[in-house]
Amino acid sequence: MYDFGEDRIRLNSLKLQGGSAVGYIEEFIEFLSIPSISALPEHKPDVAKASEWLRDRMVRAGIEDVQIIGTKGHPVVFGRKSAQTQDSSQAPTVLIYGHYDVQPVDPLNEWHSPPFEPQVRDDKIFARGASDDKGGIYPAIVAAEEVIRENSLPVNLKFLFEGEEEIGSPSLKEILDEHRDLFACDLVLSVDGGMFSREIPSITTGSRGLAAIEIEVTGPDTDVHSGSCGGVIHNPIHALAEILTGLKDSEGRILVKGFYDDVREASSAERKQFEQVPLDEEEIRNRLGVPALFGEPGYGLAERMWTRPTFDANGIWGGFQGEGTKTIIPSRAGCKVTCRLVPDQDPETICKLLEDHIKRLVPTGVRVSVRVFPGNSKPYVIPECHPVLPVMEQVLEELFGREPIIVRLGGTLPIAAAFLDILGTYLFFFAMSGPDTNVHGPNEFIRIDDLDRLRRGLKMFWSRYADSYARG
Amino acid sequence: MYDFGEDRIRLNSLKLQGGSAVGYIEEFIEFLSIPSISALPEHKPDVAKASEWLRDRMVRAGIEDVQIIGTKGHPVVFGRKSAQTQDSSQAPTVLIYGHYDVQPVDPLNEWHSPPFEPQVRDDKIFARGASDDKGGIYPAIVAAEEVIRENSLPVNLKFLFEGEEEIGSPSLKEILDEHRDLFACDLVLSVDGGMFSREIPSITTGSRGLAAIEIEVTGPDTDVHSGSCGGVIHNPIHALAEILTGLKDSEGRILVKGFYDDVREASSAERKQFEQVPLDEEEIRNRLGVPALFGEPGYGLAERMWTRPTFDANGIWGGFQGEGTKTIIPSRAGCKVTCRLVPDQDPETICKLLEDHIKRLVPTGVRVSVRVFPGNSKPYVIPECHPVLPVMEQVLEELFGREPIIVRLGGTLPIAAAFLDILGTYLFFFAMSGPDTNVHGPNEFIRIDDLDRLRRGLKMFWSRYADSYARG
Repeated sequence: MYDFGEDRIRLNSLKLQGGSAVGYIEEFIEFLSIPSISALPEHKPDVAKASEWLRDRMVRAGIEDVQIIGTKGHPVVFGRKSAQTQDSSQAPTVLIYGHYDVQPVDPLNEWHSPPFEPQVRDDKIFARGASDDKGGIYPAIVAAEEVIRENSLPVNLKFLFEGEEEIGSPSLKEILDEHRDLFACDLVLSVDGGMFSREIPSITTGSRGLAAIEIEVTGPDTDVHSGSCGGVIHNPIHALAEILTGLKDSEGRILVKGFYDDVREASSAERKQFEQVPLDEEEIRNRLGVPALFGEPGYGLAERMWTRPTFDANGIWGGFQGEGTKTIIPSRAGCKVTCRLVPDQDPETICKLLEDHIKRLVPTGVRVSVRVFPGNSKPYVIPECHPVLPVMEQVLEELFGREPIIVRLGGTLPIAAAFLDILGTYLFFFAMSGPDTNVHGPNEFIRIDDLDRLRRGLKMFWSRYADSYARG
Repeated sequence: MYDFGEDRIRLNSLKLQGGSAVGYIEEFIEFLSIPSISALPEHKPDVAKASEWLRDRMVRAGIEDVQIIGTKGHPVVFGRKSAQTQDSSQAPTVLIYGHYDVQPVDPLNEWHSPPFEPQVRDDKIFARGASDDKGGIYPAIVAAEEVIRENSLPVNLKFLFEGEEEIGSPSLKEILDEHRDLFACDLVLSVDGGMFSREIPSITTGSRGLAAIEIEVTGPDTDVHSGSCGGVIHNPIHALAEILTGLKDSEGRILVKGFYDDVREASSAERKQFEQVPLDEEEIRNRLGVPALFGEPGYGLAERMWTRPTFDANGIWGGFQGEGTKTIIPSRAGCKVTCRLVPDQDPETICKLLEDHIKRLVPTGVRVSVRVFPGNSKPYVIPECHPVLPVMEQVLEELFGREPIIVRLGGTLPIAAAFLDILGTYLFFFAMSGPDTNVHGPNEFIRIDDLDRLRRGLKMFWSRYADSYARG
């Protein structure tokens, strides 16, 4: 059973039923079917198609001034609607932020159903982007549509849906800067993110930043015979392994000189807040399927997730990867690395430190190059005294039946810092998907209940926020 | 200009000329065009096709009893011809060994012409297998054909061409064992291998063995988000890098416990022989395109190449390898490793030592599995007093105009030890291709001159060996 809008409909009869809930599910599935992978050039037309789908849907929802704003990369979709229940000049303006691009899908063979052929199984919809972030965007449009139809919109709404979040939002700063007036608002509400769990609501007061590099090690001009050259030259794979172990030690400490210099240690108040977060290490271990958790000695799990930086290889390659054996020393080996950053680390400084440290680690007999990816992002924190926090707490308590906890996001929302820098506005996460929805991995899904919870929650928040704003 | 058979024909007019030399080149190109890659299952029909091509060509050469002998993998091609100039029971029997399978071709984009569309450029023929080892097999058949036609074959000839050398000859021991009488001989002459250089002939008195494993590191059940899981779990790529650096140090010493225990150190006589080998480190460095040579401290280049074992990753993989960034911690990372072994190391013992050592290195938070590949091979050495050595020296001196040097092969001929074990016969390398022919890499080639030198050299050797054998 699920609850969507006014109806309660049995899931296994979804396809047979009429009514708006079925329409919503079918429509959401249509949106999910567009493979809008922003990282892969061959999917550029699909990203464009998703932006057009979104535009058309927003227009149908009664949102006004809907437009696709071109960038150097993938476009932004904008729309707005003025408050209906009061003079719009007296109402606060809420900008809904989300992204319609999705992560690549490999390893494809680990998906139980094709990533862009959404499947409803039990109470879940499986597809790439189901949770991150089409399942954030879609309920926001439905919520707006419902309130607009009832002529009861209490705030000025703006929508900014981007198509480059999964590649680090390279164009968004420029777009915000060029259209400051269009995007001006009192508050950014991000429907990208998630709750601590399905039972325990959470307010996310910060996110980690991101710095991304690629390391390439080159040995001989071509792959060479491992018999005639073994013992004669350095092997780029081994050289790369040496570099990686020279960048992070076997206990998880990052060895890059100066890397921790700007890290703001958690205050005792923050540590206390984090201690209240009911993290179940055994549950996490089992859910991820690892024999043991792992991380920087001297820090608890919450701190390692939220207030400590990371250094993780995201991919590695070199030489022969086919079936059987091939007795070569490869010409090249490479890897992609991303670091999650925390206040007050600066991504550009970190990339420079990485480059400098890698230069010092170059082994004899190979050449090493470092490429810095664009789309780096600063870490982000909301001040503890921000006036929207009590409103958010109230709404979440009503929605979940219990007080929210204060957490941070281990991941990165590249534009949180950009909104603050350019529009002077803090971004609040307001997203309902659970932590188990396989975002970025195979078999990503969203629960139908969570789509609905977001729809209801947004309507509630707009109303409470308008009241709070009116009271001053 | 090149010299092939009786003719001297300008290379750039090859396609226009009649005559046997042109026929040979065209025919050789036909043989090279068959993509007989033994390592890749999809090329199994091509390996079979190459065996049939070979059979038909041997029959046309006047070789008798030609047959394709099936194995569990790719077939062996056999043929024989009795001595014509004397009573065959009084003549020695020479078994010509070679292989018609070839290495895979990746990285394909580094080839200047397609690997299976042979191109004649200047005095060279470019194609996968041109040097290793179709360019060994083909001249041997031509040489036999010429002598048989002249009715002057002085030895009993046998031919054993296999299709699994590049995957470690997994079936050959069994075939030799099953057909001991068919393959019985006084001497195995391998046309797989090469000379020290095009100017300096060499007698190869040994080859290194081979042991091959694959290491797989598994972390979370699926690829996971590097934001939510970074700092929480171990990254399989980093764990693999730690394992690799725990198996070989940054100076090239292998750290596997017991790995060097059975290594026979070179005698002072051998060291002296190796010192006479004119190895030009600068030339090797330039040819391979590396900034510096590299290897185990305390050993000279020749020793590192021939009498010291190696540990080399041949390929590594894990996570995202596409364009752009993907912020995941991968579920898995793996690598293929081969070790070149020297007397008296035993491949099975070495694999066990590797497994044991890797088990001791397993980092917290991941699982590690080791797969041992079949086709391991023992190292091999010919005794310094073997009676064929002076015959070989004489032939090479005549062919090259200078005395040969004594060297070893850094690579592996998996069946040298098998011939000795099963037939009681030593294998001598008799192959002319130079060390610069890009074997196993892109743009493999052979010089047309070297095809001819092998053809002439074999005829010379058969004659001198028959004389030496008759003299007792």
